[in-house]
Amino acid sequence: MPISQGKQAFPRGEYLRRLEAVKTKMSERGVDMLVVTEPANITYLSGYTALSAYVPQALLISINHEEPTFILRRMDAPAAIHQSFLSRSQIISYPEALVGQSDRDGYDAIIDHILQVDAKWIGLEENHLSAQVVGKFSNRIATARFENCSGVVTWARLIKSELEINYMREAAAIADAAVARAAQVIGPGIREADAAAEIIGVLARGTDGKAGTMVASINMCTSPRTGTGHIPWSDEIFQQGSQINLELGGVRFGYTAGIMRTLSIGEPSDRLKRIHDAEVAGLEAALAVAETGNTCHDVAQAFYATINALGFEKETRCGYAIGIDWLEPTASLQLGDYTVLQPNMTFHLMLGNWVDEDFGYVISETFRVTESSVEVLTKTPRRLFQI
Amino acid sequence: MPISQGKQAFPRGEYLRRLEAVKTKMSERGVDMLVVTEPANITYLSGYTALSAYVPQALLISINHEEPTFILRRMDAPAAIHQSFLSRSQIISYPEALVGQSDRDGYDAIIDHILQVDAKWIGLEENHLSAQVVGKFSNRIATARFENCSGVVTWARLIKSELEINYMREAAAIADAAVARAAQVIGPGIREADAAAEIIGVLARGTDGKAGTMVASINMCTSPRTGTGHIPWSDEIFQQGSQINLELGGVRFGYTAGIMRTLSIGEPSDRLKRIHDAEVAGLEAALAVAETGNTCHDVAQAFYATINALGFEKETRCGYAIGIDWLEPTASLQLGDYTVLQPNMTFHLMLGNWVDEDFGYVISETFRVTESSVEVLTKTPRRLFQI
Repeated sequence: MPISQGKQAFPRGEYLRRLEAVKTKMSERGVDMLVVTEPANITYLSGYTALSAYVPQALLISINHEEPTFILRRMDAPAAIHQSFLSRSQIISYPEALVGQSDRDGYDAIIDHILQVDAKWIGLEENHLSAQVVGKFSNRIATARFENCSGVVTWARLIKSELEINYMREAAAIADAAVARAAQVIGPGIREADAAAEIIGVLARGTDGKAGTMVASINMCTSPRTGTGHIPWSDEIFQQGSQINLELGGVRFGYTAGIMRTLSIGEPSDRLKRIHDAEVAGLEAALAVAETGNTCHDVAQAFYATINALGFEKETRCGYAIGIDWLEPTASLQLGDYTVLQPNMTFHLMLGNWVDEDFGYVISETFRVTESSVEVLTKTPRRLFQI
Repeated sequence: MPISQGKQAFPRGEYLRRLEAVKTKMSERGVDMLVVTEPANITYLSGYTALSAYVPQALLISINHEEPTFILRRMDAPAAIHQSFLSRSQIISYPEALVGQSDRDGYDAIIDHILQVDAKWIGLEENHLSAQVVGKFSNRIATARFENCSGVVTWARLIKSELEINYMREAAAIADAAVARAAQVIGPGIREADAAAEIIGVLARGTDGKAGTMVASINMCTSPRTGTGHIPWSDEIFQQGSQINLELGGVRFGYTAGIMRTLSIGEPSDRLKRIHDAEVAGLEAALAVAETGNTCHDVAQAFYATINALGFEKETRCGYAIGIDWLEPTASLQLGDYTVLQPNMTFHLMLGNWVDEDFGYVISETFRVTESSVEVLTKTPRRLFQI
């Protein structure tokens, strides 16, 4: 029996609008076929979110066709039919004989298809393809011209539609609920892993009847590891006096909203209170200038100027564009990034500050740029949570 | 204050043994410097598991030095000091000025270091590096010879030590506990996401006092999606008559044990019972020949012959080597893979069978090869779980 198309995250018109924008960029470059392999870009242009990118797959955008063609492993084709907006005829699967072999793989099926449709000028997302794969494309499609189109779809994702913003809001509500749960379950004598289980449970359950659609990895950097940024829970027990730097995100249909908060079991140290006050002041200063027409640089400068005046520095950048699969590698909230802010760009204003090997502090918000100012999507109080 | 080295997953001698084996392979190829960038390979050779691989980082193995040098982003250096067995002097961090730029990145710092130590013949894991990065290495280190060493560390991981097997056993116990929890919490009227939250909670909490150290993604493919393989929970409600194909893994210090089981809410259909019986027979036939001296091909052949005789086919392979970060891209349990089984190789005997677009069945075990036969690490009954 055939599988039916499932509930779609977006209406067909939304995908066609996104595809039109990408095709306009393709035309500007002369490219008649774009081979989309970055998983988040495939999600953006089709709705497909299944976790099959560990084998080759590609969404082929032809300048002459309304719908892309999705080529993927046969066992994943039912998921593509179910999840994506694509017509069944646009989903082409390759057989298992191409999996687990050293001399051929799914890219050969993708190339076979491109040879059939006779594309002349082919865009590849080379920044995400190995040298071997790029070489295979150019060797096997010897008559075509190739162009590195790594940023084309990624930059198209920067400004969100209202429908995307709605999912970002729902994702932010899940992130808020998870931080609230953290403040409930973290305490002296509790094992970090047990608290993590409760927090992650919220990320799956979601909130307000909207389930999390995936669990993004969480960082829970507890004393003496508050100088680290990318470590999950441990099997140790929270102690009186422990500090916890928490970073997590809610996810709805791929769209992620991130949040960071710092918790203290017992009275925070003076050092911790001082950096918290400085960072919150910096956060507010950054948000105050995060408006349409200003640049990423302006936001970063407002933050750094504020904390510097209060006696602190932060080496890492202040944040980045956020959307499908968390970080979007486009606009960056840092000095020297002159990307102009426009309505419905969304950012993770990430003010984690790893000051010393054994001391760091974290706070962040996910926000969207509006016509006149910002909408902060995460709503958790900007407190240093004292347990 | 400096951060101290944390509790280590393995003693120093274990890492040195692994490094010696890798250096032997380097010598055979003439390579004097191996640039390890695959995250699971970095974990294998250092103990580092922090989730920082979204920016450039590399473990540099020099044929002439006992300890590797780990070059990574400055904000992640404290995690490297804390988690890895490396001496502090072997951890070199690059500044934030190399993050979020279009014209330079952390690979430039890695290359700067290699230029200083004057390596002559450099191995790169090219299968995991973009064409741009490989080009940057060869352009900037013009006097060196380069070689694609993608499989060198990966293949060295295939045979586990007793210490690694212990973590695989602990990971398998977590996987078993999560399946047991699934059988408790799945039921008619329950929302998939709520059941998923409970199951994932077990993956974080672990079992027998051993916490999960990470949560691997889970597949929960429920009617009408049992023909798909890589989809998580949905926000729908389990119905009387629903079938659930569950795949999940426990994780201990990176080491993962996978398991699949099929659940049925209410009496399973005859079709489901027949395929279950055939697959269990195939599973037992496969395990019966999974012994030292036989090949991956032999295991696959025993499985396929058994289910074919019972009237079933399975297109996908029967499994793959498993270890750090789940799938190891080396030995594959499929026809034509003549890798000879040796003691302490570990496999995920993955018998998921997506028969039809709307019908699939899953069962799997994680096992290790012993001197005389196999030890099945996952202990969940091979039942079709009826709820």
